[in-house]
Amino acid sequence: MNIAISGLRSQIARILQKNLTSEQAAVVADYFVWAEMTGNTTQGIVKMMGTEPIQDIVPQGEVAIMKDTKLSQIIDAKRNPAPFVSQIATEVAIQKASEYGFAIIGVRNAFSSNGAQGYYVEQIADAGLIGIMCSRSPASAAAFGGIDPVFGTNPIGFGFPTLDKPIVFDAATSAMTFYGLVLAKARGEEIPENMAIDSEGNPTIDPAAAMDGALLPFDRSYKGSGFAMAIETLAGPLLGGAWVDNKTFEEEWGTVVIAIDPELTVGRDELKANVSDMLDKIRVARTRDGGEIRLPSEHARRRYAAAKERGYIEIDDAVARELGIAA
Amino acid sequence: MNIAISGLRSQIARILQKNLTSEQAAVVADYFVWAEMTGNTTQGIVKMMGTEPIQDIVPQGEVAIMKDTKLSQIIDAKRNPAPFVSQIATEVAIQKASEYGFAIIGVRNAFSSNGAQGYYVEQIADAGLIGIMCSRSPASAAAFGGIDPVFGTNPIGFGFPTLDKPIVFDAATSAMTFYGLVLAKARGEEIPENMAIDSEGNPTIDPAAAMDGALLPFDRSYKGSGFAMAIETLAGPLLGGAWVDNKTFEEEWGTVVIAIDPELTVGRDELKANVSDMLDKIRVARTRDGGEIRLPSEHARRRYAAAKERGYIEIDDAVARELGIAA
Repeated sequence: MNIAISGLRSQIARILQKNLTSEQAAVVADYFVWAEMTGNTTQGIVKMMGTEPIQDIVPQGEVAIMKDTKLSQIIDAKRNPAPFVSQIATEVAIQKASEYGFAIIGVRNAFSSNGAQGYYVEQIADAGLIGIMCSRSPASAAAFGGIDPVFGTNPIGFGFPTLDKPIVFDAATSAMTFYGLVLAKARGEEIPENMAIDSEGNPTIDPAAAMDGALLPFDRSYKGSGFAMAIETLAGPLLGGAWVDNKTFEEEWGTVVIAIDPELTVGRDELKANVSDMLDKIRVARTRDGGEIRLPSEHARRRYAAAKERGYIEIDDAVARELGIAA
Repeated sequence: MNIAISGLRSQIARILQKNLTSEQAAVVADYFVWAEMTGNTTQGIVKMMGTEPIQDIVPQGEVAIMKDTKLSQIIDAKRNPAPFVSQIATEVAIQKASEYGFAIIGVRNAFSSNGAQGYYVEQIADAGLIGIMCSRSPASAAAFGGIDPVFGTNPIGFGFPTLDKPIVFDAATSAMTFYGLVLAKARGEEIPENMAIDSEGNPTIDPAAAMDGALLPFDRSYKGSGFAMAIETLAGPLLGGAWVDNKTFEEEWGTVVIAIDPELTVGRDELKANVSDMLDKIRVARTRDGGEIRLPSEHARRRYAAAKERGYIEIDDAVARELGIAA
């Protein structure tokens, strides 16, 4: 279904006001509209559905600071929606790293996904800094060779400034995202092969069986599993929150936002020029299909620009129906 | 061939003294002996062979500091062997991060691999800190869908303190390492399928054709390619060295060593306890083969302990012959 962007934003904000102030709802709605505009459908309004719709989570008060140093902060989300709190963490990271060169900001006591890491690390890169972000979530992915889920889908994102727009790369370390399962289930579709196993470790293409079982590592190997573990450590044990939980959705999620000022090394201007030069050199490589190398975030940026130009976007009918969003 | 560890160390050091002082040679030999003891054969003495044997590189003077701030340093390797300079970078990272909470140390003007990142990040974790290390090398790996090599094998390593020994994860972001090709060629062996392409982009199992062509991303997908790009950026453009070079071996390699003091977040003692608890929870997960989950670095640690206990190790006959190493 096609929907005007402004109308989508206001309808999302209205749904989110169930448990949020209008100011908070607007921050979260901005994220969701960005996700839909960039085509990040598994990181978009599908998160308002599923086992724990984001608008149903009741905050336990205002976001607070648990620890603060020159280079770091741990933020207590008090069950406020993760996109709201990760936006705060991103802004604190930019502020501290701009002043001191480096910042590591943790988010504790959030009980939802913050969506695509790209949204946040792009803001850090827009500020001239390098952004790195890692999140852990309730266990839904097996370690390599394992049956029981131990890791979350554990995404990581990188944002780098260039002479033009930042280049952003983000990826889940599971074969597919958990909300990819939610979306497939809502649509009554099967998932591709070799993505997940059921609760006994058998391959499955049934999204419900996969939700009871586990996703596989993104490369189906020990390497993907190692990346998932590193991200679990940075967003769990390093913050003192939860880790390797048992998919009860009763334990907190975790996010760490890192910003590094290139003034510590080559300086901001030279970094931008160097990264742009690197991308130019990648682009001229020959490809097997004769096209251009696919650089991370370029498709998403084109979709965003096209949606902005048109003024409307297409959203999934099943999702719109379930959320009561009208064109 | 079986060789006493002490004898291997002294023979490696002797070969390395071709262009190094005995003190420098000893530092580099320590790395190589560690690599052989842990079973990291593609990161071991095979690097004294191939297109650019490490002992043939003529240093252009003493290692110097190009830039120094409280939180950072860029080290000019002056063509000294990368394991020697990365050892210095590791020690500087530990020192600065222990004092200020964070450190980012770059290595410029090195013209060899520093070997397995695990060796260095383990030292950082042993000091109670989190270690992260990224390296770029001459282009030998294609981006996803590409034919021409653009990235190096671009490894990343993570080291985390635990209540016991550190847990370490390192991996190349290419399907196999470049020295895996060198080793296969030396042994007259083929490489596995789906690892590499020749210079026209066709799949190849011939290590020589792969060296003229390109390795594939480790997951054969855009995600592995994105990780390779992020690592290239951190170890290239961020340091002002080289990036996406054309496998001429005339341009420098690049390494960045990052150390983070957990005192910025939960504190050192709590981090150790948390990481150990995380590993315990991973270990109890059921597996598909009924065995135990394979945790990164545990195999290597067992092999290292066993070699130490025995006092000797087995090294590849072809490699020993080419290097003139005798039992």
